[in-house]
Amino acid sequence: MDHLQSLSHWLQENNLDVAFISNPTSVAYFSGFYAEPEERVQALLVFPDQDPFYFGPQLEVEAVKGAGWKYGDYGYLDHEDPFAIIAEQIKKRQPNSQRWAIEKDDLPVGRYETILKYFPEATFPGDASRFIEKAKLIKTPAEIALMDEAGKQADYAFSVGFKAVQAGRTEQQIVAEIEYALMQQGVMKMSFGTIVQAGTNASDPHGEPKETKLAPNELVLFDLGTVNKGYMSDATRTIAFGKPSDKALDVHKVCLEAQLTAQAAVKPGLTAAELDQIARDVITKAGYGDYFIHRLGHGIGTSTHEFPSIMAGNNMELQPGMCFSIEPGIYIPGVAGVRIEDCVHVTETGAKPFTHTPKELQYIN
Amino acid sequence: MDHLQSLSHWLQENNLDVAFISNPTSVAYFSGFYAEPEERVQALLVFPDQDPFYFGPQLEVEAVKGAGWKYGDYGYLDHEDPFAIIAEQIKKRQPNSQRWAIEKDDLPVGRYETILKYFPEATFPGDASRFIEKAKLIKTPAEIALMDEAGKQADYAFSVGFKAVQAGRTEQQIVAEIEYALMQQGVMKMSFGTIVQAGTNASDPHGEPKETKLAPNELVLFDLGTVNKGYMSDATRTIAFGKPSDKALDVHKVCLEAQLTAQAAVKPGLTAAELDQIARDVITKAGYGDYFIHRLGHGIGTSTHEFPSIMAGNNMELQPGMCFSIEPGIYIPGVAGVRIEDCVHVTETGAKPFTHTPKELQYIN
Repeated sequence: MDHLQSLSHWLQENNLDVAFISNPTSVAYFSGFYAEPEERVQALLVFPDQDPFYFGPQLEVEAVKGAGWKYGDYGYLDHEDPFAIIAEQIKKRQPNSQRWAIEKDDLPVGRYETILKYFPEATFPGDASRFIEKAKLIKTPAEIALMDEAGKQADYAFSVGFKAVQAGRTEQQIVAEIEYALMQQGVMKMSFGTIVQAGTNASDPHGEPKETKLAPNELVLFDLGTVNKGYMSDATRTIAFGKPSDKALDVHKVCLEAQLTAQAAVKPGLTAAELDQIARDVITKAGYGDYFIHRLGHGIGTSTHEFPSIMAGNNMELQPGMCFSIEPGIYIPGVAGVRIEDCVHVTETGAKPFTHTPKELQYIN
Repeated sequence: MDHLQSLSHWLQENNLDVAFISNPTSVAYFSGFYAEPEERVQALLVFPDQDPFYFGPQLEVEAVKGAGWKYGDYGYLDHEDPFAIIAEQIKKRQPNSQRWAIEKDDLPVGRYETILKYFPEATFPGDASRFIEKAKLIKTPAEIALMDEAGKQADYAFSVGFKAVQAGRTEQQIVAEIEYALMQQGVMKMSFGTIVQAGTNASDPHGEPKETKLAPNELVLFDLGTVNKGYMSDATRTIAFGKPSDKALDVHKVCLEAQLTAQAAVKPGLTAAELDQIARDVITKAGYGDYFIHRLGHGIGTSTHEFPSIMAGNNMELQPGMCFSIEPGIYIPGVAGVRIEDCVHVTETGAKPFTHTPKELQYIN
């Protein structure tokens, strides 16, 4: 069953009249067409037993056809009222649309209130965010192949980045080398802004690359990923530039052990919380537990924030086809920051990573 | 009055108990701290007569202090319930928080429902999106200075891009040259993905750069912008590579006349709709009216989609300090696509552009 059919099926099962799909990534998941409408209105309207339709800015209507969308499409100009057009088309197909499914993680309250103006009887018993989360949870072999390719792009990015390490170059200039090399190969989208952090800058786990110049004898952290036909990679390596302090080397050793231990422990039936705990135990035992201040990992696929979340409290059991990151980190402000990350997919026998750049500490001089 | 004070003042005036500010750009506008929390919860809680507080992922709490935030900040770990912590802190400050302001353009329905779980008596008479829209409408001289700087970065980007034009190079490779040159100078964020479109590719007004190789005797469209300390530039130029067709040259001539006419017509008191009409009339008179399928412009500042929208139906009068794009476009599928754009700010005497790259057709051989 294709993605659209299973959404219609879910609507039937739950006695829902219409689904309003608004997240651009979700629109792409069901239609094959991605566009970022910013403040303009874009949605896919899906029904239990009628053909769906695409609605969006007039600007996009040519493109949605070009992407192979074979159902209806309706555009609006900037001065037109998008919801008047949407409501008219919905009523043509499903005159009594009372029970709605919306993406509750995405649809802003203002648009929800607008729907209520056009459909005062509407109720919202369906949370399409939850349906989509589950639909995306187990990746198909075709999806995994796309993620393997994205992983190869990330490996290439590491190789460029490591070669660019040089005293006096800024973190930002190394990012420039990485992204330039990727764009030259037609990789135009990173899955997030590439992170290069030298020395103690890496102790801020969400820091951005700065004008800080690299200097010998410190660790350098690289966190990066690409988007390949909508599917993402995400990986982190921390390397040694010259000879870092003993403390920094110890932090790397512990973080690596946590990463390798967790990745080796992956198997169907283990829970997400158990996997998180396995990595956390290694770090806690070494005395760095207070410096590992985020979950072990996040799901990945068409976004870098999907199911399963690898964290305490999540008793979801791992299953073949699930894809997520394993990324322990130890951040000691002013001292060192290390994170090591592969994204993997679960197979019957364990975890298979999408990236293959060695995780053991690499020395660059 | 600073941004936070005026928000508190608005809450007082409207008898509101608390504002939940969730859009990351808005959080930055009021706090000076920008972070993209993705699916994690981040908010600024602001009160009519109490100090505000920042709430976000534990990961960000160090950084918000570093950015100079002098009020309270509370973090949560991934396995904790963010809204339990937020609710506790709100109740400490404002035990009877009934009348809420939320950003209705931003807050997803799911989080709105969660607020209602913790505050079953809550009502939402305040739409902070509308307040913020108005607060941002008139830029201060300091903001305009940041946008001038962003405009200079865009001019530099054009100069790099024009020099990179060469037969056999792909659109994507030219984007790579532009973004690399900017990153080398520490400009790490584009305000949107840089667009380079050769020949008829430019007739898709929202198309992405492709692997299409540039060939002589066609137009090439560049649409790009940068982010300078949170403030954005956005500009479009269409140049001639070799000797384009007479039809393409005519489309450029008409589009340029529409752009120049509209930009020269800007003055306080003119309405947004009137300005749109001035450009549209030029294009319609030349016979291309059906190919100008978007509004004339959008507001710009901390985003590329703010007030004022320059379009039919918007009777807002232009005032000094307003900033927006003037970007007529003519898109004839399979024939040619031309767009020419400056962003400007309104002064007492007219429009001042942020970008200064010549708009007259430039020939590159």
